Amino acid sequence: MLMLTKQDIKKIFSMKDAIEADKEALRIYSEGKSTVPLRAKIDIPKELGQSLFMPAYVEELDAIGIKIVSVFPNNITLGKPSVPAKMVLMNGKTGEVLAMIDGTYLTQLRTGAVQGAATDILARKDAKIGALYGTGGQASGQLEAMINVRKLEEVKVFDIDFERAKKFAAQMQEELAHYFTKIIAVEDSNMALIDADIITAVTTSKKPVFDGTLVKKGAHVNGVGAYTPEMQELPESIVVNADKIFFDTAEGVLAEAGDLIIPLEKGLVSKNDFDGELGKVILGEVKGRESEKEITLFKTVGTAVLDVVTAHKIYQKALKHHVGQHVEI
Amino acid sequence: MLMLTKQDIKKIFSMKDAIEADKEALRIYSEGKSTVPLRAKIDIPKELGQSLFMPAYVEELDAIGIKIVSVFPNNITLGKPSVPAKMVLMNGKTGEVLAMIDGTYLTQLRTGAVQGAATDILARKDAKIGALYGTGGQASGQLEAMINVRKLEEVKVFDIDFERAKKFAAQMQEELAHYFTKIIAVEDSNMALIDADIITAVTTSKKPVFDGTLVKKGAHVNGVGAYTPEMQELPESIVVNADKIFFDTAEGVLAEAGDLIIPLEKGLVSKNDFDGELGKVILGEVKGRESEKEITLFKTVGTAVLDVVTAHKIYQKALKHHVGQHVEI
Repeated sequence: MLMLTKQDIKKIFSMKDAIEADKEALRIYSEGKSTVPLRAKIDIPKELGQSLFMPAYVEELDAIGIKIVSVFPNNITLGKPSVPAKMVLMNGKTGEVLAMIDGTYLTQLRTGAVQGAATDILARKDAKIGALYGTGGQASGQLEAMINVRKLEEVKVFDIDFERAKKFAAQMQEELAHYFTKIIAVEDSNMALIDADIITAVTTSKKPVFDGTLVKKGAHVNGVGAYTPEMQELPESIVVNADKIFFDTAEGVLAEAGDLIIPLEKGLVSKNDFDGELGKVILGEVKGRESEKEITLFKTVGTAVLDVVTAHKIYQKALKHHVGQHVEI
Repeated sequence: MLMLTKQDIKKIFSMKDAIEADKEALRIYSEGKSTVPLRAKIDIPKELGQSLFMPAYVEELDAIGIKIVSVFPNNITLGKPSVPAKMVLMNGKTGEVLAMIDGTYLTQLRTGAVQGAATDILARKDAKIGALYGTGGQASGQLEAMINVRKLEEVKVFDIDFERAKKFAAQMQEELAHYFTKIIAVEDSNMALIDADIITAVTTSKKPVFDGTLVKKGAHVNGVGAYTPEMQELPESIVVNADKIFFDTAEGVLAEAGDLIIPLEKGLVSKNDFDGELGKVILGEVKGRESEKEITLFKTVGTAVLDVVTAHKIYQKALKHHVGQHVEI
């Protein structure tokens, strides 16, 4: 089997590759051509931790996989990552394990890429200014995805910790220099919104991180964080004002995303206000943006199909380019 | 992380080690000190295959693990194993993946060992003659476990395919020569029973593989195969005649084992006839064998706790003896 580290993946698999993989995954998911059993969850009360096991199968790629993700907040005190993750990829024709892949980087990539897919499909072509809320573990992938699909002149970055925002902006300005986009930290949450054509929130906030009434006409908004029914990073006003609302998976978002569940429960919106899955737009079954004035909104909570399809594509490219360590087991 | 092949495991982990690990696992399970979420299952209709994902957590060992087992009958035509399996072991303190272990050999070991644990605890100390029904993938581990816990002079081996039984017996006679037990293939199913003190069935038969009325007083019987409600390798008469009946896990056996479910449904026995889990015998909460005349019966369908505890013990010994390949991921 093949072992693929973050460095291995970086050598051969770009954000553009990941975005194309995620578009394929969303299309397959919305066609009903994937199998995603209920994920298994083990609580580790002693460590206030939790391990999640997320399998899926994609027949047309003959790919089976399971992502193993643990959330152990105490790891920080040990100098270890608090969300260690590994992806096991299997051959759908034989059931054999083919590869183990760095699951932390895979998650960053595919979570960035699913927003990149939505932004590519839904944002105005002439988008120039971006706004990013949150500078945690998923933020770099989110930023790269935004500037990968649109030639943005500037992205304003906000975090409740301004120092952290400045550090993140400086680091990203360097790492993503080849995109020629200005990355600027801003101290006021709504300052980031001014003129923003593309707005991405990736926080675990329980209260909205910006004022939705300030979002300009024609903007595209991504809700990437807030993955439980209690979290709500998007203002209710933007859910109400958005002309079109799309999901990665309707089942996941309506079960897990407070951003939509809370306004639904309050009666501020109804399910009829939702346009459906991005995969249906890709399939041509649902319309995406129809005018330059519409505000579009995309909410993602993720699905194991994104992991399996992306892991499969990474593995194929790694084989082709002779990257990774082969081990006997 | 550490990669452990069958050869690595064989160097450092004996059947005796596995039997001790399984006793510990059964004790922990019956104390209610393990966490075993529902296993996830993916059907692969295109290949008539199936992939199973079986996680568990054992707090007192700080061990989390998941066994990934696929059943792909068509693999035979490709010259590949039809039940490829891998075990992923994780650190229960941090959630990090520690090792990937050959799951096929782990399964053989722990499935042999759980019978070895039962035989060690329940069979007469002076047992001399063994009988083994079935010579498939799990049979070698079953045979070794039997002769590991009792100094058997002879084990008679039966299979519906006599040629296969002869080949198996000859091969085992060589591989297990250090136990000084005669391994003999027999052509008649009930011939294997004559004088047998320990009887182990490990088949996928839907009809009983021997005549239960021929089992002698004082014998110990293990039902290891027949892992679905439709399979029934043990004769109903032995379920009725056994003085004591034990399980690895009551939940598993009563949900999955036709050997007991079918006689229960027919009203030949009632749940009151069952003595409980072997773990409870180990804990001293339930009595095991109480006389030299009793017929004892043990039925196992397995549990992920056996995998996790055995994998944990293998990993500890591998670290101590510097066995296995360390890889970066």
